[in-house]
Amino acid sequence: MVPYTPGEQPRDMEYVKLNTNESPFPPSKKVIEAVNSLEVEKLNLYPDPTCKALISKLAETYGVGEENVFVSNGSDDILNFSFMAFCDKDKGAIFPEISYGFYEVYADLYGIDYKKVPLTKDFAITPSDYFESGKTVVIANPNAPTGLALTLAEIESILKANQNDVVIIDEAYVDFGAQSAVSLTQKYNNLIVVMTFSKSRSLAGGRLGFAIAHKDLISDLNTIKYSTNPYNINRLTMVAGIASLEDADYYKNCNKNTMEVREYTKTELEKRGFSLTNSKANFLFAKCGKIGGEQYYSALKSKGVLVRHFKNEKIKDYVRITIGTKEQMDVLLKKTDEILNEV
Amino acid sequence: MVPYTPGEQPRDMEYVKLNTNESPFPPSKKVIEAVNSLEVEKLNLYPDPTCKALISKLAETYGVGEENVFVSNGSDDILNFSFMAFCDKDKGAIFPEISYGFYEVYADLYGIDYKKVPLTKDFAITPSDYFESGKTVVIANPNAPTGLALTLAEIESILKANQNDVVIIDEAYVDFGAQSAVSLTQKYNNLIVVMTFSKSRSLAGGRLGFAIAHKDLISDLNTIKYSTNPYNINRLTMVAGIASLEDADYYKNCNKNTMEVREYTKTELEKRGFSLTNSKANFLFAKCGKIGGEQYYSALKSKGVLVRHFKNEKIKDYVRITIGTKEQMDVLLKKTDEILNEV
Repeated sequence: MVPYTPGEQPRDMEYVKLNTNESPFPPSKKVIEAVNSLEVEKLNLYPDPTCKALISKLAETYGVGEENVFVSNGSDDILNFSFMAFCDKDKGAIFPEISYGFYEVYADLYGIDYKKVPLTKDFAITPSDYFESGKTVVIANPNAPTGLALTLAEIESILKANQNDVVIIDEAYVDFGAQSAVSLTQKYNNLIVVMTFSKSRSLAGGRLGFAIAHKDLISDLNTIKYSTNPYNINRLTMVAGIASLEDADYYKNCNKNTMEVREYTKTELEKRGFSLTNSKANFLFAKCGKIGGEQYYSALKSKGVLVRHFKNEKIKDYVRITIGTKEQMDVLLKKTDEILNEV
Repeated sequence: MVPYTPGEQPRDMEYVKLNTNESPFPPSKKVIEAVNSLEVEKLNLYPDPTCKALISKLAETYGVGEENVFVSNGSDDILNFSFMAFCDKDKGAIFPEISYGFYEVYADLYGIDYKKVPLTKDFAITPSDYFESGKTVVIANPNAPTGLALTLAEIESILKANQNDVVIIDEAYVDFGAQSAVSLTQKYNNLIVVMTFSKSRSLAGGRLGFAIAHKDLISDLNTIKYSTNPYNINRLTMVAGIASLEDADYYKNCNKNTMEVREYTKTELEKRGFSLTNSKANFLFAKCGKIGGEQYYSALKSKGVLVRHFKNEKIKDYVRITIGTKEQMDVLLKKTDEILNEV
């Protein structure tokens, strides 16, 4: 079995860390106020396994019923449960060949037969490749590490053409400019939209993910949760999640800033001869014209900037660069100039 | 599939909550200091998936190597991983008929063949029933909900007689007077000791469990963790866990108090005609002579005291009573007197 490899966390020096798609902004002040010593004092008591207050707030935020919301310990946890609940030895999975690396890990873990569909040469997902698949469809939208997003109409075309199968849309990065499929959960009972507080709500360290879907699919996810680890959201993350949802404006501004800095960085890299996809995520997928992806990654690392490089042959010329603050991206650009001058 | 049923959390009134084996004591002041706003501000960053600082502290506390320690999101999570890693359709599991209800849930979830071994009529586990089982052995020590503990020699006899199979000792309640098998992990490479911060370290709300075993078994658990949800311990629980370990004296005193209050409550219930096991856990397993277990449970609930009753035929005359503060137990005794007077 080959487990997932998280982004490296070297400790040999202080890095500008642009390799794990974290938000460069701290959680909202409301979160910091909510996780106070009175809450910490209550840690001797179990959290509410039904997560009622958090689910109620999410339902209100997304305009759905409480029975349409599932929460768990990060969106990885929900994806894991989804592979357990909606695939098995007979019901396979289908997902893009280049996408979040964990889909393949889950499928391998549970002995699920899966089909990996190649992207176009421009790294695009072709919706019709997933029509009448007879399998559980898993699509990251925007996709990772390409950053490319499908339109809502394209997502709907996949849903329409797979009405007897579950379609999982992984929207970890949706809040940076793509269209969410949440509205389609009212119309398609085969759709699960999986989201996370890790990126657009600055809560990667809290571990909180959620899913929105028809109540029958939510009920299946709850069966898995109550059959494995019912108390999997701790008390402090619960209050942090609720407080995050109560300060939507703060996060909207943070995400707006990330999108602006993304476009700025993209333009600057293009000026330096890079090719980039039209990323709608909080990262760029960038190919340096002059040196290979691994060489660029290594050169940046030696200069104190961490980005992510994937060994896969089809994307080996590229690196994935998380969007940090403008100041951090200026460091990246400066180091990139140094590297290009040294070639 | 029948998932696990957590203890009820009714919201219709304020209860004296003696039904989920929580500690009545808050976490140590060091925990409250450690989970401060500076830590909350860092929640935009992922936790360390290797949990290095926490594992290092646990290794030091238990006198084992870091490679012998695994941490995860509560001991339920570790038990779940253990069933995934050490059982399958061919390798079954064996555990007591009356024990933690989750073992059967895991086995059902993964399609694992299992054997439930009856307890003696005094609710004791007979070690020889588990000898040369050819299965993965799972024993809660002390057992739940009986509270009865095996001696270290009895545990060792099970290990000796199952050297080709994994033996999981679930020590969730070990710090209230039973003997831990941690020392035996140095001698038996088939032993996993699973523990939790939930009970004896007042951290049920933080979700933190750990296991100590030979490095090969720890490595297997890590493979499952990195194939499902590598970042499953959030940043705040990580610092809370470390701070707990740095204030061992505080928890030792809390646990001493719990043991004293347990013996006091046991004596008082015996005076009232109850039969009780010799519990070494933070709960009592008690049978009222005059009325059935369900009736006693219901009568207590109507008077604002929650205890746990299990429908299983063999233990239906009993209730499980968590040991709270002396004041809480005096409320239980007072309400019990009222109930007995009303019969």
